[in-house]
Amino acid sequence: MDAFRFHNPTTLYYGKGQIEKYLADEVTRIGKCVLLLYGGGSIKRNGLYDKVVGILKEAGVTIFELAGVEPNPRLTTVHKGIDICRAENVDLILAVGGGSVLDCAKAIAMGVKYDGDVWDIYVRKGKATGALPLGTILTLAATGSEMNSGGVITNWETKEKVGGGSEYTFPVFSFCDPENTYTVPKDQTIYGTCDMLAHCFEHYFHPTRHTPLQQHLIEAVMKTIVDNAKLAIDHPDDYDARETMMYCSTMALNGMINMGLRGDWACHAIEHEISAIYDIPHGGGLAIIFPHWMEYTKSVNPSRFASLAKYVFGVDGTGKSDDQLADIAIAKVREFYQSIGAPQRLADYDIGSDQLDRMASQAVRFGEIGNFKKLGKDDVYKILEAAL
Amino acid sequence: MDAFRFHNPTTLYYGKGQIEKYLADEVTRIGKCVLLLYGGGSIKRNGLYDKVVGILKEAGVTIFELAGVEPNPRLTTVHKGIDICRAENVDLILAVGGGSVLDCAKAIAMGVKYDGDVWDIYVRKGKATGALPLGTILTLAATGSEMNSGGVITNWETKEKVGGGSEYTFPVFSFCDPENTYTVPKDQTIYGTCDMLAHCFEHYFHPTRHTPLQQHLIEAVMKTIVDNAKLAIDHPDDYDARETMMYCSTMALNGMINMGLRGDWACHAIEHEISAIYDIPHGGGLAIIFPHWMEYTKSVNPSRFASLAKYVFGVDGTGKSDDQLADIAIAKVREFYQSIGAPQRLADYDIGSDQLDRMASQAVRFGEIGNFKKLGKDDVYKILEAAL
Repeated sequence: MDAFRFHNPTTLYYGKGQIEKYLADEVTRIGKCVLLLYGGGSIKRNGLYDKVVGILKEAGVTIFELAGVEPNPRLTTVHKGIDICRAENVDLILAVGGGSVLDCAKAIAMGVKYDGDVWDIYVRKGKATGALPLGTILTLAATGSEMNSGGVITNWETKEKVGGGSEYTFPVFSFCDPENTYTVPKDQTIYGTCDMLAHCFEHYFHPTRHTPLQQHLIEAVMKTIVDNAKLAIDHPDDYDARETMMYCSTMALNGMINMGLRGDWACHAIEHEISAIYDIPHGGGLAIIFPHWMEYTKSVNPSRFASLAKYVFGVDGTGKSDDQLADIAIAKVREFYQSIGAPQRLADYDIGSDQLDRMASQAVRFGEIGNFKKLGKDDVYKILEAAL
Repeated sequence: MDAFRFHNPTTLYYGKGQIEKYLADEVTRIGKCVLLLYGGGSIKRNGLYDKVVGILKEAGVTIFELAGVEPNPRLTTVHKGIDICRAENVDLILAVGGGSVLDCAKAIAMGVKYDGDVWDIYVRKGKATGALPLGTILTLAATGSEMNSGGVITNWETKEKVGGGSEYTFPVFSFCDPENTYTVPKDQTIYGTCDMLAHCFEHYFHPTRHTPLQQHLIEAVMKTIVDNAKLAIDHPDDYDARETMMYCSTMALNGMINMGLRGDWACHAIEHEISAIYDIPHGGGLAIIFPHWMEYTKSVNPSRFASLAKYVFGVDGTGKSDDQLADIAIAKVREFYQSIGAPQRLADYDIGSDQLDRMASQAVRFGEIGNFKKLGKDDVYKILEAAL
């Protein structure tokens, strides 16, 4: 493995009843003035909004609200949040929602402390200098944003979707109650599954030598996702299944299973360009791209794909070459996506070939992407073309 | 899984060259007056002492020293450390050594801030009220103390060996350089292996329902230990093997693979009574007890043992009952201990039957032990007797 530094200071609360027991304490330890950030209003329909506001009010907390954070959160919304925090001297941002709301909260938190446009930090023209404290209440199992410092913001004007973060943007606390995901629609549950599995893939396909424990830890998360996803999708109020998927999503991207290795992340970079132009769900885009990326890169290290087949999909490797097992692994990945109803091709979103060149150029605008295999513009173009 | 709260604030540095790069910064961020704590002097022989002292002096740090921390660290040594910290207004304890030195540092750190004898905290007569900051430089892969808040202290007067800790005793930082374990003697490498594997067993055998991800995460660590231990033992300066074992030891007991479940911990309680009287190595005692505990408890949940056989030892379960697989799993555990040269029976330490009754009584003095299966005095006696 590579030498590494690991630090994840987020306090994680999992399970039923934790919000009622500990939210007020966690908030008021930090301050008495909160920006409550949420999305399209599902938390009003399922009662979570009333619960949270009730708890905060009883604790004497002043609440400012910013609702309507978009599924791919936009810079304009981030700017609105920064303005509120500055005008009202907000002590803490409380993000209630899925990864988009959480990512938006991180951008606002950095922006409040940044002298300039927070977008600079995302396009690597500036560095975060601090952040308002932020806490989260998760309502969607997908991005892992509840226990990491990163997030993705879309600049709709320039059609750019970029990931960023800083050491300051780990949530101070995150509450994950599986019951808050019962009302997540079927398609979002599917996309969330694709997203968390994609995070595992990004870790798993890496060039770092000698990482046996990390390999098996990542396999543990992948196997659990594969074994439990369909249950959560078909039975949205199955507590055990929702709990397992929520916990997998947290563990897939909190840094605990991938210490000391450089993940690939090319597929995320490619998908960001698709959804920056077409505004498609991130998880859907990832499910489309990954099998084609796997076909394109499998020759780099077939044995990694063979391990995927054996340890995640339970394939008996006896008498099979790594190349054969690699093909089986990719077929199994496709089968899995199909079994949960994930999209298979760009055509499923009515995306044709007219913007391929632009997406391929944009994907490599900071240089080659990917660590398992370095990809230039031509490579990205070919992968996108195969996915049409 | 159970509802849980997880928080692990330790900053972990892994790999070659990290001490040189980051130690001075991490120490001086906290203060300029350090208690340097270490054991029998192996760090003087292998050059680590000189390296650390050189770095601290160059950073303008004042150093007080307490050497000679015992393998089962003693309360008398803890008291000495507390006296030095109070007399010299120490800002930070820097523990350089294995789990014993680290555990001793935690006790000193709590003791400095506690109004009374720190032993109260260990025997549940008092509660920690704070702790001096502590940092660690690990030299032995075993206890996981570098990234958790617990530790074990022996009161030699009362022949009691008790685990304790507090939310205040997570190391602020820990440096883990596998090269610092090259000079660990063969027997200590064996005991360290037994210790980290035992931590996994304690997590793995639990009564909490529905924990599929935790199960596979724990299996990941166990499988990696089983696959790599012999290499590290036979080739003490194999960097990869030492790195893997060190990393397994950290991950086995930093709370990341066992969130939301109640581990068993009966074998640790039993072993503490053996080494409190006979001062044997903790890892050796655990290797002796575990197979007998497994025989005694396997009927509680044979399928857990069957999973151990399949996922850790790669046993093909086709056509075998869980009971059969449980027996195979226990045989595999014994084989593994044998293969690395771990002790098999209490007789290997010349321990006879004369103190069995006393050990059994002491083990349950706070009540029944174990969560996978509750054990009373008679149960503990039988397990000890089987291990003679």
